[in-house]
Order: sequence, then structure tokens, then C-alpha cells
Amino acid sequence: MEPCHLTATEAARLITAKELSVEELTRSCLDRIAQRDAKIRAWVTVDPAKAIARARELDKVMVARGPAGPLHGLPFAVKDMIDTVDHPTQNNSPIYVGNQPSQDAHAVRVVKAQGAFIIGKTDTVEFAAGGRKALTRNPFDLSRTPGGSSSGSGAAVGDHQVPLAFGTQTGGSHIRPASFNGIYALKPTCNVVSWTGARQSSPSLDTIGWYGRAAEDLTLVAQAFRLRGTDAMTRPNVKDLKVGLAYTHNSSKAEPAGREALKLAVERLASAGAIVEEISFVPDFATLNDAQKLIGNWEGQAQFLPDYLESHEKLHDDFRQKVEGDGDMTVDRIRQVYDTVYRCRATFDAMFGPKLDVILTFAAPGEAPVGLHSTGDWVMNSMWTMLNVPCLAMPCHTGPNGMPVGVQIVGPRWSDADLLAIGEAVAPLIDVAASASTQGVAA
Amino acid sequence: MEPCHLTATEAARLITAKELSVEELTRSCLDRIAQRDAKIRAWVTVDPAKAIARARELDKVMVARGPAGPLHGLPFAVKDMIDTVDHPTQNNSPIYVGNQPSQDAHAVRVVKAQGAFIIGKTDTVEFAAGGRKALTRNPFDLSRTPGGSSSGSGAAVGDHQVPLAFGTQTGGSHIRPASFNGIYALKPTCNVVSWTGARQSSPSLDTIGWYGRAAEDLTLVAQAFRLRGTDAMTRPNVKDLKVGLAYTHNSSKAEPAGREALKLAVERLASAGAIVEEISFVPDFATLNDAQKLIGNWEGQAQFLPDYLESHEKLHDDFRQKVEGDGDMTVDRIRQVYDTVYRCRATFDAMFGPKLDVILTFAAPGEAPVGLHSTGDWVMNSMWTMLNVPCLAMPCHTGPNGMPVGVQIVGPRWSDADLLAIGEAVAPLIDVAASASTQGVAA
Repeated sequence: MEPCHLTATEAARLITAKELSVEELTRSCLDRIAQRDAKIRAWVTVDPAKAIARARELDKVMVARGPAGPLHGLPFAVKDMIDTVDHPTQNNSPIYVGNQPSQDAHAVRVVKAQGAFIIGKTDTVEFAAGGRKALTRNPFDLSRTPGGSSSGSGAAVGDHQVPLAFGTQTGGSHIRPASFNGIYALKPTCNVVSWTGARQSSPSLDTIGWYGRAAEDLTLVAQAFRLRGTDAMTRPNVKDLKVGLAYTHNSSKAEPAGREALKLAVERLASAGAIVEEISFVPDFATLNDAQKLIGNWEGQAQFLPDYLESHEKLHDDFRQKVEGDGDMTVDRIRQVYDTVYRCRATFDAMFGPKLDVILTFAAPGEAPVGLHSTGDWVMNSMWTMLNVPCLAMPCHTGPNGMPVGVQIVGPRWSDADLLAIGEAVAPLIDVAASASTQGVAA
Repeated sequence: MEPCHLTATEAARLITAKELSVEELTRSCLDRIAQRDAKIRAWVTVDPAKAIARARELDKVMVARGPAGPLHGLPFAVKDMIDTVDHPTQNNSPIYVGNQPSQDAHAVRVVKAQGAFIIGKTDTVEFAAGGRKALTRNPFDLSRTPGGSSSGSGAAVGDHQVPLAFGTQTGGSHIRPASFNGIYALKPTCNVVSWTGARQSSPSLDTIGWYGRAAEDLTLVAQAFRLRGTDAMTRPNVKDLKVGLAYTHNSSKAEPAGREALKLAVERLASAGAIVEEISFVPDFATLNDAQKLIGNWEGQAQFLPDYLESHEKLHDDFRQKVEGDGDMTVDRIRQVYDTVYRCRATFDAMFGPKLDVILTFAAPGEAPVGLHSTGDWVMNSMWTMLNVPCLAMPCHTGPNGMPVGVQIVGPRWSDADLLAIGEAVAPLIDVAASASTQGVAA
């Protein structure tokens, strides 16, 4: 197998065992990128010479004193609204063409400090929040979107061009592309990973997450971030799991392929002995989709003001509107919106306990839609983002057009370690294509 | 009068009327800094040549096409954990000595885009969150602290070295120094000013604010940030004001000078016809001080992880402890803490209405304490920070040791414009020393 097809966990094991060099892995990823990038267009910048130099340096470190950390030698893609000191950060905005930060974002520093390195930057929706779309195409069908706003990161991992990538979610920007590209994603609890150095849009929602091609890959990165409890995880027995099936108030937006994926996931878990029961939500939860838009616009006003003042004509109208504000919005109304969200957070977490371990729900409405003018509908994601809770997406099904369709599992705030452990336990059942093959999803 | 003694509002008016050049104002501030900085030590970096060059440029802009914005020609001090492209940003941390950002923080961009410029960076408590103290001394008594963490910004404005400065508050870092240095401060509603480019410590609390030497100065800057409603403010009649006097559960920490300041403020408002009545809080509010520490530590874990991994030996133990976490803290407990804070936010805002316009309370326990080993107690501030609400501090009293003692007024979330209007209306009554003099607090 070409090293680029390895999962991050497999590659890390081989590197530490000195059965694979960082340079071999890096060259394999660069070759794959060179073959595929003209079609997929996942990348904004890749610097092969820099990547190989860094890989060699890490190979020397390995020989001299062993792995720099648990991520030793693993190349990361970074969504191009997260600052990197060795690549420009352009936010898919004409205002930031060539913008070169002097510091890495905190998330980038954390993985670099533990042996990973940045192979390049991936295309994104403008500021990860509106405006211009990425040029990226879905690796399973070039006529379709890879989703967004983490478009390039999702496609690059799905297309085996890189084992790991950072994405972000403010509405549904991280989990939906995972479903569309047939990969795994963790959107952790809000604020357990520092946002510093990433382009902010809505501070109470913005969350950095990562992509991999196995549940274990997500854990590996979570451990590097020292997410609470990930140092001592125990996979539960699936037959002991109490799974809440959440159709939610959004289920009418599910397409047949999305429904089929969720149905298959339920059947696979149930036949392994898990107890799966449908759960319902109090009416307040039906307001969370609107709340995401309202709070996103309300908080975006401050975030886009500098660009509005400095570069008005280069700022997309989506962001000008955020700055100018919604004349109909009142302070009383937005207080009500926030306070309802706050109540839902408490109510949601209290649902978990002896009768409920984890929620299973749609990761996206269905297959990735045709066309690059839209990145698909984030209706299945925004509720969970509002709740600030961890979400883990995994592949499950192949739709009628041959496109991957995932599902997601969701836990209460700060249960990231439990969610990852459950993810590792259920992934071999739900992601049957991967368990039938040693090399993951076929590319 | 030397231009450095002008308030920002007065200086802006004279500059726009072409009765004062930006260079004259800047040279006056630089002279004052040169006279005083060896004693006060408010500044980490000042670059006189750069400041004068920028001042001349702004004078040329004024001649050629009028003011660049409402802040035309006003020098700002910037707390040295807020990024600036023309000065290093060192966070009072040995890790960041000489650190030169490639971008200004959003807040800096906003004021620069409207004609202000950065005259230098001011000393701060390490990362504005713990560890090393600033070297800054109180301009009213060199043996005393100016407060912190916004130590240098508070002292520089209080000592008439600069008309305006940015500070930040996560506990009581902005309002307390205002009281200790005899100046005005606004800590706006959390997230109405972008935090991007400032050093994060606790994302759900961190708030950028500003100092001035008059209530109108605070409004001037708030208008530059387009805080909701500040484009059309109406000062209320003091005799129509319903003021809630808040002793809170912290009042036992008030010193005689703090009590006297609050008593004087009440008397001055009441004799102008305002209705001042003591208000009480439900017991949940008594948990907010502890919540500030618990959430600060909980959220700090992610924020200091990169420095912990990269520069362990240079990171102060205060931050190492945040990263390593409190072994006794559980997820259930922190959920309870957050959800109590959320409930208090809703409860607090609902207290306002026909019977309550604004809250009047302590800005600090009393006079600035002797010694630089402590920046004083933030017990009078953390509750309001937790509530995310706007706070406006103003001078009121001179204590037995000749030190200024302020009070603060507080409103519900997003009432910044109303709070500023009330501040402008009551300042001439409460800050009697300033109203008795055209040049503000004597220096």
C-alpha cells in the first residue's frame, strides 16, 4: 500500500517502529497531491521542498532521540483561515492575498510541538463564514461539492492526500464535509481547543476540529490536545450502550440517502446488542437553527468591522451586512435567543445518564449535492454547534449516486473522551466498508 | 494647558477645528512620558520617532482631506498583550521577548482606521492573567500599585501621559485600575468588541475595554466601535433616573474609603433628584466570584497549552497549573458552574425595566494598596465580568491617603449606549473634582 493510504494511527505506528520514514510518508502524500490537485483543488498552498526538508529533520530527530511526540512525522492540512508561520493565511478573501502571519495558531503549535508538521493550506469558504466558495471538488464525484466551509480539508483527507487536517465549525462546516467525503471528524466541545490564531466569526460557536480516516485518528489528535479523559480511555461494550436516536425537528430535511444511512447505523448497532431508542426534545430546541443564524450575525458585527472599515470594496456583501446589522433585531430579542440557547445546553446535558450514553443522528441531509455554488445544507449540524457539544462523524453508507453518507454521534459538553471511546467501539460496526478493507475507503 | 492634559474629546475637537496639530499633542504626550516614565514605568515600548512621523502624516491628511475619522490624531496606549504591527507584543512573558506580530489586533485596526494611532505598549500582568506583575507604579503614590492587570494603561492615562488606552478584563483587570488611577473606563458587553489578536485566557469572559479622562471619551471610542445605539444617544435627566444601589454579597470586602465613595455617589445622585434604592440579588449570584476562578482555570487549560509544550521552563507556574488542571474538578461540577452563570445572566438582565435603569456599585474595595507585589483585590469586579455586562467606572472620592477612589455603574447586556449616556449625565455630579476644574484630575 502507498503510505498516503495509511490512516494516521497506522502511519504513526510504522514511523515509531522505524518501518516507515517521515520522508517516505511525505513524498507519498506529495505525489498523491501532484496527481490529484488539478482536479480536486483542495489546496491553496503546498510547498513540497519545505515539506521534505521538515520530514528529513523529523527523521533525524527520530534517529537521534526518538519521536518528538505522539504525532511524530504526521503531515497536517490546515484550513486556510487558521494562521501558519510557514504558509500564508488568506481566508479565501481578496483582502488577505499573500497575508503571512508571524505566529502559528495555537492549535498548529500544539500539534507541531508533538511532532506533526504542516504540509499545506486548504481552501475554505470566505472567512469560513459566507461570501466566496472554495474551488474544491468532491473526490468521489468532481461535479459535486465536498461541503464547506472546511472544503479543502475534507476533500484532501477523503482523497488520501493527507492523513489529518484541521477544519472548523460555526454552523455545520466541519461535520457535513466529513459525511460528504467519507471520512471521520471530531468537532470537540467548544473552547477545549484554543481558537487563538484562527479567523473568528462567532466567538460563542467557533470551534476547531480535525479529520482523519479512522476513529482512532481522532483520538490520537485529541490526546495531543490533552482533552480531558483522553489519557485513560476505555472502549465500552457495544451491547451495554444506550443510544438515543435523534431525528430532531430537522428530520423533514433528511433525504432518502441520509435516512437510509441512519437506519443502517441503527440496525448495525442494534444487531450488536446496543439499545437504540428514539429520543425527543422539548420545543425550545426547535429554535436553535434560527438562533445559530441570529447569533452568528449578531457576533459577526464586531468580527468583520476592521475589514469593513479598511477594505470596504473588497469585503463580500455577506460580511458588510453583518457589520451593518439587522435593523429588525432588538436587544430584548437577542437576549431571549441567548438565554434560550443557554437553557437548552443545560437541558441537553441533563438528558444523559444511566438511560442515555450517546446520541446518534444525521451528519448531513444526504449525499453531497451537485454543483459548487452551494456547500450543502448545514441544517443537521447547527443545533449541536449551538449546544457547544462534541460531535463525531463517521462513514456509514453509499448513496444511490455512489457518494458516501455518514452519521454522527453526539455527547454532552466535555464528554469528548467518552465520545471518542464510543466512536472507536461502534466504528467497526457502522463503517462496514472500512472494516471490510484494511485500507479504508476506496479512493 | 499642555495638550497632554486635554481629554480625548477636547483634543479631538481642537484637532478638527485646526486649533491643535496632531504633532503638538503627540510631542506633549512624549514629553510627559519622558519626564515621568522612569518613575511610573507604565510603558514597555514607546517609539518617539515613529510617533512623530505618524503624527505628521495625520496632520498632512487633515490638511489634504480633513479628519480620517472621529479619532483623528488621538494617541492610544495599548496593553502589551494586544497585538500591534508597529510595536512588539511581549505579554510580560519571557517566552515572548521581542515577539513582533505581523498584524494588528482587530481593536487596534478599528481605531487606526478612524484616525487614531498607537504611541506605545503598556506593561501588564503576565498574559493579563497571573504570574509576573507589571513594574508600573501608581502615579498618585509611587509606593502603591496602579492595579492590574491593565497596570500600565491605567497609570499612563491617570498620569496624563496619553489620553486613551486599551485595557482588558477577565476578572477585574480593567475597572479596578480605573478606580486606582482616578480615570474613566468602559468594559463593554462581552464580544461586542472583537478579541482577535489579543492574548486569550478565558474566552467566555475576556473583554477589551478602554480608558479616558471623561465619560465623553469613552463614548467617542464606543462610537468608533459602532456599539449598538451609540450613534444616537440621549443623555437622561438625572432626576428621572432609577438607580439600584448594589452592595452585593461582596460588601464586607469594602474598605472605609470604598464605602465613603459609594455613599458620596449616592448622596450626589439623590440630591440631583435621582431615585436610589438598594437592590438585592438571589443567592445564585453569591457563587459568581468562585465561578470566575473555576471557569478561568478550566478555559485557561487550552489557552496556555502551546506555551506549556514549547517553553515549559519559561512559563510561570500559575499557567502550568492551569494546563495541568485541578484534579478535584469534575465535568458535572463545571457544567453546574456554567449553567448557574447562564441563569444569572438572564436573571440579572430581567431586573432592569421601569423600576431600574442602572446599578451603582463599588469599582474597587478602596484606595490602591501599598506595594507592587499585589494589584489589589478584584472582588468588586468578577461578578459583573461573569454576567458579561457593560461596566463604566468613574472617579468619585479621594481617600485618607490622597488616593482616588472610583465607583462603577452597570447595565444589562448590550445596553452599552444607555450606560454611556447615563455615565455622561451623572459624571458631572459624581466626579466633583473634575467638574470643579476644566483640566480634569490634578496631576
